[in-house]
Amino acid sequence: MTAGLTTAQLTEKHRPTLDQALDAIRTRAYWSPFPEHPKAYGAEGAVPGSLSAAEGRAAFEALRGGRFELDQPGTDGWAGAEVSPFGIELGIEYPHPAVDELLPALRAAMPQWREAGPEARAAVCLEILTRINARSHEFAHAVMHTSGQAFMMAFQAGGPHAQDRGLEAVAYAYAEQVRTPGSADWSKPQGKRDPLELRKEFTAVPRGVSLLIGCNTFPTWNGFPGLFASLATGNAVLVKPHPRAVLPLALTVRIAREVLREAGFSPDLVALAAERDGEGIAKTLAVRPEIRIIDYTGSTAFGDWLEANARQAQVFTEKAGVNTVVIDSTDDYKGLLGNLAFSLSLYSGQMCTTPQNFLIPRGGIATDAGPKSYDEVVADLAAAVQGLLSDDARANGLLGAIVNDQVKERIDAAGRLGEVALASRAVENPDFPGATVRTPVIVKLDGAKPDAEAAYFSECFGPVSFAVAVDSAADAVELLRRTVREKGAMTVGAYTTSPEVERLVEEACLEECAQLSLNLTGGVFVNQTAAFSDFHGSGGNPAANAALCDGAFVANRFRTVEVRRPA
Amino acid sequence: MTAGLTTAQLTEKHRPTLDQALDAIRTRAYWSPFPEHPKAYGAEGAVPGSLSAAEGRAAFEALRGGRFELDQPGTDGWAGAEVSPFGIELGIEYPHPAVDELLPALRAAMPQWREAGPEARAAVCLEILTRINARSHEFAHAVMHTSGQAFMMAFQAGGPHAQDRGLEAVAYAYAEQVRTPGSADWSKPQGKRDPLELRKEFTAVPRGVSLLIGCNTFPTWNGFPGLFASLATGNAVLVKPHPRAVLPLALTVRIAREVLREAGFSPDLVALAAERDGEGIAKTLAVRPEIRIIDYTGSTAFGDWLEANARQAQVFTEKAGVNTVVIDSTDDYKGLLGNLAFSLSLYSGQMCTTPQNFLIPRGGIATDAGPKSYDEVVADLAAAVQGLLSDDARANGLLGAIVNDQVKERIDAAGRLGEVALASRAVENPDFPGATVRTPVIVKLDGAKPDAEAAYFSECFGPVSFAVAVDSAADAVELLRRTVREKGAMTVGAYTTSPEVERLVEEACLEECAQLSLNLTGGVFVNQTAAFSDFHGSGGNPAANAALCDGAFVANRFRTVEVRRPA
Repeated sequence: MTAGLTTAQLTEKHRPTLDQALDAIRTRAYWSPFPEHPKAYGAEGAVPGSLSAAEGRAAFEALRGGRFELDQPGTDGWAGAEVSPFGIELGIEYPHPAVDELLPALRAAMPQWREAGPEARAAVCLEILTRINARSHEFAHAVMHTSGQAFMMAFQAGGPHAQDRGLEAVAYAYAEQVRTPGSADWSKPQGKRDPLELRKEFTAVPRGVSLLIGCNTFPTWNGFPGLFASLATGNAVLVKPHPRAVLPLALTVRIAREVLREAGFSPDLVALAAERDGEGIAKTLAVRPEIRIIDYTGSTAFGDWLEANARQAQVFTEKAGVNTVVIDSTDDYKGLLGNLAFSLSLYSGQMCTTPQNFLIPRGGIATDAGPKSYDEVVADLAAAVQGLLSDDARANGLLGAIVNDQVKERIDAAGRLGEVALASRAVENPDFPGATVRTPVIVKLDGAKPDAEAAYFSECFGPVSFAVAVDSAADAVELLRRTVREKGAMTVGAYTTSPEVERLVEEACLEECAQLSLNLTGGVFVNQTAAFSDFHGSGGNPAANAALCDGAFVANRFRTVEVRRPA
Repeated sequence: MTAGLTTAQLTEKHRPTLDQALDAIRTRAYWSPFPEHPKAYGAEGAVPGSLSAAEGRAAFEALRGGRFELDQPGTDGWAGAEVSPFGIELGIEYPHPAVDELLPALRAAMPQWREAGPEARAAVCLEILTRINARSHEFAHAVMHTSGQAFMMAFQAGGPHAQDRGLEAVAYAYAEQVRTPGSADWSKPQGKRDPLELRKEFTAVPRGVSLLIGCNTFPTWNGFPGLFASLATGNAVLVKPHPRAVLPLALTVRIAREVLREAGFSPDLVALAAERDGEGIAKTLAVRPEIRIIDYTGSTAFGDWLEANARQAQVFTEKAGVNTVVIDSTDDYKGLLGNLAFSLSLYSGQMCTTPQNFLIPRGGIATDAGPKSYDEVVADLAAAVQGLLSDDARANGLLGAIVNDQVKERIDAAGRLGEVALASRAVENPDFPGATVRTPVIVKLDGAKPDAEAAYFSECFGPVSFAVAVDSAADAVELLRRTVREKGAMTVGAYTTSPEVERLVEEACLEECAQLSLNLTGGVFVNQTAAFSDFHGSGGNPAANAALCDGAFVANRFRTVEVRRPA
C-alpha cells in the first residue's frame, strides 16, 4: 500500500460536499460541486490538480493504440476494437475477464467494505468522483470518441454532469443507509416487573456483486448512478461497458481501483469486463448467481430480457420510449421554435430524452404571432432547425456524429414514412473527415390514418421526429396517454396557454407517470435534466423501471441485518 | 355522505401519533400507541370508544352464520366456508367479486386519493387503524377462529401488534413520499446572463391497484404492512384473504371503507376479493394489468410463481425458510431451555419465525450448570417443553389449535424422520372439544449423515423441530450459512459465551443476510419482533424478498412525477 489516505481523512475532506448533496436532494434547488465550464480546469482553473484542455487531450492521445492495463485478477486475454464515430480508431485493448476467477475476487473484497460503514464508503466514492472530475478533459475526449457527442457536450454531459449524477446516487445511498441507526437500546415496560431490555445493532449489508451494463451514447452519465449507488451501499461492481464505449468506463474503473487501494480497501471492489466482438458477455454475466444487482441502459428488447431472466438480481433498466410534445398554443412562438429546434439538434437527437412526436392540432394553434396552421407550425419548426444548423461549425458543435449505422439507416429511411418537412443534410466536419454528421429529419404524419401509427407509435432512435396532426388538444392528450402507457416515455413536453389544456396534460402525466416540461422557450430543454433537482425518467412507465435518482433506486441495493442481544 | 371528518381534522388528530412513529423508526427504541393488554379496552379501559371483552365476543358472535355485507361494486355472488381450527363453523358469506367490474372501480377511486397528498393519506390510514384498534376484542376472536391462535396471542399479535406494523408501514410510506418537496424553485447561474429559472412541482403518484394475498396464520399481522403501505402511497388495495382466514381482513376492509367514505373519499380504494372453494383467484388477479403491486405471505412455491409471473407488478413476498439456532455454550442454561421451550410451543410452532433446527455439537456444550452432552441438551430441552405444557390449561393458552390437516400430518410423520426426543401429545380443550391441540415434537438427527439432510434441510412447518448433532461450533456455522443461503431463514438464534463463536455467527448472518438473536434467555423470544424497532425478515435471503418494514418496502409503491415550467 502506498502512503494512502485514511478513511477518516477522506471523510473530513468530503463530508461538507456530502452534506451539501444531502441538502440539495431535499430542497431540489440548483447545486453542483463540479464546474461545467471547461475553463475551470487546468493549472489556471478553479479545480485543484485538474488537467487542462491540452493535458486532457494529450492524456487521451497517449491511451490510443495501446493496452489499457488494469491490475485486476482473472484476466485471460485482451479485447477492444473501438472506432470513434468521428472516424478514428482508438486501437485500445482492455483486459478480458476470466469470469470464474474475477467474480470470486469481487465477492472476497466485500466484507471489509461492508465493515467500513456508510460514511466511509461515501467518502471513498466522493474521492473517486473528485479524481474523475479533475480529469474531465481526458474523459471528454474518451466520451466524444465513443459516443459521437460533440466536444462541449461530451465534456459537460460526460464529465461534470455525469459526476453530479454519481454524487447524487452516493447521497441517496448514504441517506438510505443511515435512516436506521447503527444501534439502539430497546426497553419494553412490563408493568411492575423489570422491563425487557435489548441491545440492537443494525448493519447495512451488500446484496452481492453489482453488474453495470453500459451504453454507447452516455457511458458515464448513464453508468455512474448505478455504479456509485451500488458501491456506496457496500457492493462490489463489475463494469461491463458497451463494446463501442469502453474507454470512459475503463478510466473510471482504473481511478476507482486506485482510490480504493490508497484508502486501504481491495481494489477488486470495482473491475472491468470488456468483451470480445459479438461475445454477448452481458447475457452470461446477468444470470450468474453472484450477480445480485444489475444496472442497464439500452434497448427495450435486452432490458425486457434482463427483467425476465435475471431473477436472482435487482434489475434497474432504462430502455426506450416514445417522447411526445403536445403543441396546443403559446405566447412565445419564437421561443417555442428555437427551444424545440435545439432539442432536436443536440447530439443529433440521439438522446433517450429527445422528443420524437410533436402532436399538433390539424386546425392549427394560437400564438403570440397570430394563429398558425398545422402546416405553418411544421414549416416554421423545420426552418428553425435549418437556421440553427445553417452554419457548419455551429452545426458540428451541436450535432456531434452519428453513433452507428443503424441510426444512419433510420435517417435515410425516414422519408418513406411520410411527407418530409425537413430533410436531413450531411455536414462536413473539417477536423474529423471520417465523421458521419447529419441534421435532423422531420416527417409529417396524419394521426387519424391507421398506417401512420406504425411510424409514430414506436421508437425511432436518432434525429427523426414526427409532426403528427391530431384532431384537437384533447385528442393529443389521449394519444399522449396511450403512448406513455403502451410505449413509455422518458420525457413529455407541452406548450399551451390554456389552463384547461395544461390541466389535461398534467393529469395525463400524473396518471401515466411521465415527467413533464411545460412551455420551455428559453435555455432549458425538455431533453436535459439537472442532478439533485430533476428526476430522469419516472420508473413508472415502460421506458424505464427506475428513476435517477430516488429512494427506490438505492433502497434495495442493500439490506439491514439486525443483531439483538440482552442488554 | 355522513357528517364526516375532514382530512384537516384527521390530520390534526393523528399528526402527533405519526410524528411519534416517525421518531420511533429513526431511533428504533421501544414504542407502541396501541396497548397490548386486553384490559385496556372497553368502557373502563384506556382506549376511548373501544369494545370490551364481552362486547368484542358478542360482535364476533353476531357475525357468525350471516352474510358479511360490503357495499362494494362488482359483486356477483357470495363465497365463504370458514371453519375455525377450534372446531366451530363460522358460516359467514362474503361478497364474491366480479373482477372486471371491481378493478375499474378501484382504479377510478385513485386520482382523488392521489391529490389528497401524503399527509392526508397518512391521517386517513391512522384513523382506520385507530378504529380497528378500538375493536381489538372483536378482531381477536376473528383471528383466533381463523388462524387457530390461542385467545391471548390472537388478541395481541392479531390486534395491537398488527396495528403497530400497519402504522409503521404508514410512517415509512409518509417519510418516503415527503423526502422530495412538493415544489422547488431552481435557479442556475449563467455568468453575466440572467440565471435559468424553473418552478418545479413534485407529486407522489400511485402505481395502480395493489393486491394483498393474505395468509391463514397471521391474516392481520402479515397483511397490514402491505395494505397500509400501498394505501398510504396512493394506491387502491384489493384484499384477497386466505379462504380459511377471511373474517379478520373483511372486518378491516369494512372499517377502511367506512373511514374513507366519511373522510370524503371513494370507499372503493379498499375492497375485498373473497373466493370460492378451490377457485384460485389469486393466480388470476396477480397477472391482471391493473395490479401493479402484490403483497404475499405463504408457501415458497406460490411466492416463487408470483415473482416469476406477475411481471407487471412490484412483488413483495414472505415465503418459507429453515430457521436455525446454534447452541454452542451458555451462562444461563436454565434460561436457554425455558426460552427455547416457549419459542417451540407458542402457537404450536406455526410461526414463520419459529426455530426448526437446533445445531448442537455432538461433543456437548459448556454451561453454567457444567458441561452438557448433546443427548443431555436435547433431553433437557424436551423436558423443558414438557414442563411448560404439563398443565392443560396453560398448554391450551400457549399452543392454540393446529391450523390445518397438513400440519397435523407432519406431526404424525415426524417420528419416521429420526429418533424422537419428545413425542407430541394431544391436549384436550374443554372450551372447544373440536380443536386439534398438539404439543411439539423434537427429533434427533445426525448432521453428518446424508439421509438426515432431507429432513433438516427443508421447512417442516408446524411444531416439529430437529436437534441436529454437528461436529463443532464451526461446523454449525457452516451449516447455518448453507441453510440460510439455500433455504432462507426468517430468524437465526445463537447461544454462546465464546467471543470467537459469536463473531463467526454474526459474520455468517451479515454475509448471508439473516436477522440474529443472541443469547435470549428471558422474556424476549427469537420468533417475536417488535414493530418500529425490529426488522421482520431481511429481504436478502430466500425466505422473503422484503423486510417489515424499511425504505425498500415502500419506496417503489409510488413514483414521483415532476412538472417543471419557467418561473
